[in-house]
Amino acid sequence: MNNPIIIAIDAMGGDNSPDKVIKGVSLHSSVSLNVNYKIFGDKDLITPLIKKYNIPNKRFELVHTHKIVQAEDTALSAAKRGKDTSLWLAVESLKNDEAHAVVSAGNTGALFLISKLNLKMIENIDKPALSALWPSKKGMNVVLDLGANIECNTKNLIDFSIMGSALLKALFENLRPKVALLNIGSEELKGNAMIKDTYQLLSEKKYSLFDFEGYIEGNNIMEGDVNVIVADGFTGNIALKTAEGTSNFIISELKKALTSNLISKFSSFVNFTNLNNFKKKLDPRLYNGAILLGLNKPVIKSHGSTDSIGFANSLKVCEKTIRGKLIDSIKDSIN
Amino acid sequence: MNNPIIIAIDAMGGDNSPDKVIKGVSLHSSVSLNVNYKIFGDKDLITPLIKKYNIPNKRFELVHTHKIVQAEDTALSAAKRGKDTSLWLAVESLKNDEAHAVVSAGNTGALFLISKLNLKMIENIDKPALSALWPSKKGMNVVLDLGANIECNTKNLIDFSIMGSALLKALFENLRPKVALLNIGSEELKGNAMIKDTYQLLSEKKYSLFDFEGYIEGNNIMEGDVNVIVADGFTGNIALKTAEGTSNFIISELKKALTSNLISKFSSFVNFTNLNNFKKKLDPRLYNGAILLGLNKPVIKSHGSTDSIGFANSLKVCEKTIRGKLIDSIKDSIN
Repeated sequence: MNNPIIIAIDAMGGDNSPDKVIKGVSLHSSVSLNVNYKIFGDKDLITPLIKKYNIPNKRFELVHTHKIVQAEDTALSAAKRGKDTSLWLAVESLKNDEAHAVVSAGNTGALFLISKLNLKMIENIDKPALSALWPSKKGMNVVLDLGANIECNTKNLIDFSIMGSALLKALFENLRPKVALLNIGSEELKGNAMIKDTYQLLSEKKYSLFDFEGYIEGNNIMEGDVNVIVADGFTGNIALKTAEGTSNFIISELKKALTSNLISKFSSFVNFTNLNNFKKKLDPRLYNGAILLGLNKPVIKSHGSTDSIGFANSLKVCEKTIRGKLIDSIKDSIN
Repeated sequence: MNNPIIIAIDAMGGDNSPDKVIKGVSLHSSVSLNVNYKIFGDKDLITPLIKKYNIPNKRFELVHTHKIVQAEDTALSAAKRGKDTSLWLAVESLKNDEAHAVVSAGNTGALFLISKLNLKMIENIDKPALSALWPSKKGMNVVLDLGANIECNTKNLIDFSIMGSALLKALFENLRPKVALLNIGSEELKGNAMIKDTYQLLSEKKYSLFDFEGYIEGNNIMEGDVNVIVADGFTGNIALKTAEGTSNFIISELKKALTSNLISKFSSFVNFTNLNNFKKKLDPRLYNGAILLGLNKPVIKSHGSTDSIGFANSLKVCEKTIRGKLIDSIKDSIN
């Protein structure tokens, strides 16, 4: 058996932590046998949970600190006065090569700033990008940048294409990455100069890591014909948030329709199993875990409001980025 | 009775035209008694349809042309060689004050370019914007610009706020327009310089037409707390298309779930009425009709793939923009 993968975990960030975090570790540890956990947080809170959820002693190391980054801290204040918080210590353990990846369900801005301060950028990558999984009719897409960089140049978008493709390969080894640039409609209007230049450059050079498929419009993101969708952080964030809002709207209207009278209450019940399949496919916990790409170690953000199942899925993302050699794959393609 | 409203109609554009157009006119004419129609297109095709759908002679005038703008024409080629097409003639009738508004289900780019060539801009408006209705949990939003202008300045976004508010008032006279600028997440990242400057200017000046409510993120567009959502054309188009794609994705997954076995087929049937209410609320035909704002007459684009019900709704939009004095309302607020 190879040496185990070690995941550094900020146990204190996000809603209902550390309970959901430790329960998530328990869920993940029971299916992923060759992974150990370096858990950072308050031992008085965490130790009873470790007993409750039956995590074997050999699987984890607990590093105590009672200091935590609060959800309402600015990234800057968290970075300045946060050197002994669970978040900082977890990231620092990566810097010191004591862990292979880090995950937190806490303050997003703080996680990213503290990671940028402690970890090195991969050589020749100018800006880190925030990426996430997005379901499609045919499987799963990687979308980036989701908000780390408001303004981007052609070099950034090409870097994002490479990093997003490497992430897709690490998570789904059998998939061939197909990259498209998120853009708008009709021929005359198509895109600004930066997007057009990026299109040109991606078309001219052949990349072994991915196929470049041209532009994609927002309405085709979820068709599944491409699987790596690249945008500047402003555009990507607008698309992600709009998709979230649309999804919430439709599900809430659907619930209203399905419970508006007695007959439908009965038939909703009959339909329960099938609607559960439907909900499962849309369950955000299944693709929980935004990944900060561009640093020389994987940094994973678990959603603050997720539960133990969602957190366990973030741990799976950590594991896959390491087993799938995400960082090496980026380095190989970036030169 | 006042003089009737006259709507100029390109009868030849879009799928299944002129059938759906003439059937749409018939539907609209039966509920809107003081509206007449100036119909442009091929009389050999249209005359039998007018008989089939029982449109009284006094309600319409038919102007014959056998020339039409094709869906695949570029806007420029349509404008150059299209001076006797049904689209051009319909727009020209506005220019000559023979009609109050124009509608086409045909080539979008051609409709807008030909409108810009024939009609005047409202004084002090620099750029026309494309707007549309978007459902929310509490009713209906106006969203603009949806793609007419890739790059915008602060003056444009302020103009869009005024024009969008005037449109909302014209369509829903009892609503108070609440304007928000579409922007992205966290404090540190919030927006580019142009958006921030627009925020500043809209906060400083009080407008009698609308209340300025600040920024909105994509996930809140459909909450209904604001009802006029303003963005540059690139951002607005990305949001619109992403919402469309997400909606298609969820409905298609839902259909799969509801028909995947026999029990669910039965219960889907029981649920039919309620799901119909659900579908009705999401029916794009209900808010069919993009509106080009900034010209001195209302120009309405009906969706190319809509049917007669959708086209009738576009005619209702035409009617409401005229009865609601859309253009006057913009002029009053722009100075």
